[in-house]
Amino acid sequence: MGAPSSIEALIEAFKRLPGVGERSASRMAYHLMERDREGAQLLSQALIRAYDSVQHCVKCHSLSEELICSTCQDTSRDSTRLCVVETPADQSAVEKTAAYKGYYFVLMGTLSPLDGIGPKEMGIQSLLDRACDGVVKEVILANNFTAEGEATAFVLTEALKKRGLTVTRLARGVPVGSELEYVDIGTIAHAMVDRRNA
Amino acid sequence: MGAPSSIEALIEAFKRLPGVGERSASRMAYHLMERDREGAQLLSQALIRAYDSVQHCVKCHSLSEELICSTCQDTSRDSTRLCVVETPADQSAVEKTAAYKGYYFVLMGTLSPLDGIGPKEMGIQSLLDRACDGVVKEVILANNFTAEGEATAFVLTEALKKRGLTVTRLARGVPVGSELEYVDIGTIAHAMVDRRNA
Repeated sequence: MGAPSSIEALIEAFKRLPGVGERSASRMAYHLMERDREGAQLLSQALIRAYDSVQHCVKCHSLSEELICSTCQDTSRDSTRLCVVETPADQSAVEKTAAYKGYYFVLMGTLSPLDGIGPKEMGIQSLLDRACDGVVKEVILANNFTAEGEATAFVLTEALKKRGLTVTRLARGVPVGSELEYVDIGTIAHAMVDRRNA
Repeated sequence: MGAPSSIEALIEAFKRLPGVGERSASRMAYHLMERDREGAQLLSQALIRAYDSVQHCVKCHSLSEELICSTCQDTSRDSTRLCVVETPADQSAVEKTAAYKGYYFVLMGTLSPLDGIGPKEMGIQSLLDRACDGVVKEVILANNFTAEGEATAFVLTEALKKRGLTVTRLARGVPVGSELEYVDIGTIAHAMVDRRNA
């Protein structure tokens, strides 16, 4: 009686997206089926392509289509600097500021002991291996200024300093409690310039 | 340097959805690639399935997986009543009220002369054919109360009355659960004109 089951299934699939509830999901599904069939095809193809081709760069753990991502392959960058971010979206935000020309390491999350994500699960060892390659001198922690981000930064600072590296943290100026991905680029740029010793 | 091209393509595809801008699209794409790969697969499959199987019911023009949709096939409905709506989403809204047990006809839009959509392009003839099957007695126009919806309802009323059908329109009035203070004046004016015996 209601909507065809394949439309119901499409609505359910849209509801898995962040910020999409019943109403938006149903609007999206009907929009594609009534008015933008080409868009439905494009989206399904883009999903399949991204699903099949995107993996983690073995060097920085960011999302990449190759074994080593284009950023890590870029030899024009300053190899003495390594910027640690939580997600590829955060990396993309820092990159857009054009205030940083070193390499990155993407943690893919934060420490979250309550969820069972300790230093081991987060793969801090691979960050340490990357940072102690003998070339990197400064590690810039661009963790989010959330409780989990701060805790993660604290743990990383201890571990990295012990290995003789200079550890810096993005300047406060990024509003406390917010996530990098949603901060305006100018603020991130200032925070990059004003980075301080941790 | 930036995001992998397949992620860029995915972001572009998400941006075609209604109410989705650059930021939400990028959030959706990264969410699926970082945290919900299964969701990406589900969504692409749901899109393909809907794209392949959903068509227009030959009787009511609503979206359906069969030649004739389940609503039109439901013989328990009151075949003397036909409710005209603009979209399948509107039909779904009317259906959810459980206040109507007749059949539907979905216009798939409104008259919009500036966009070149006149009575012919909108397929008013197939509505007239459907309404004049000799069984339908009353056509309930549930067009939206927008300028285009009102214009469409006006044209349909003329054409249907000429063929001897009873034509009704959804009551305009104060929404259930609302306070007069916050209802717009036009709505109150209509509710006053259309007042009924208590």
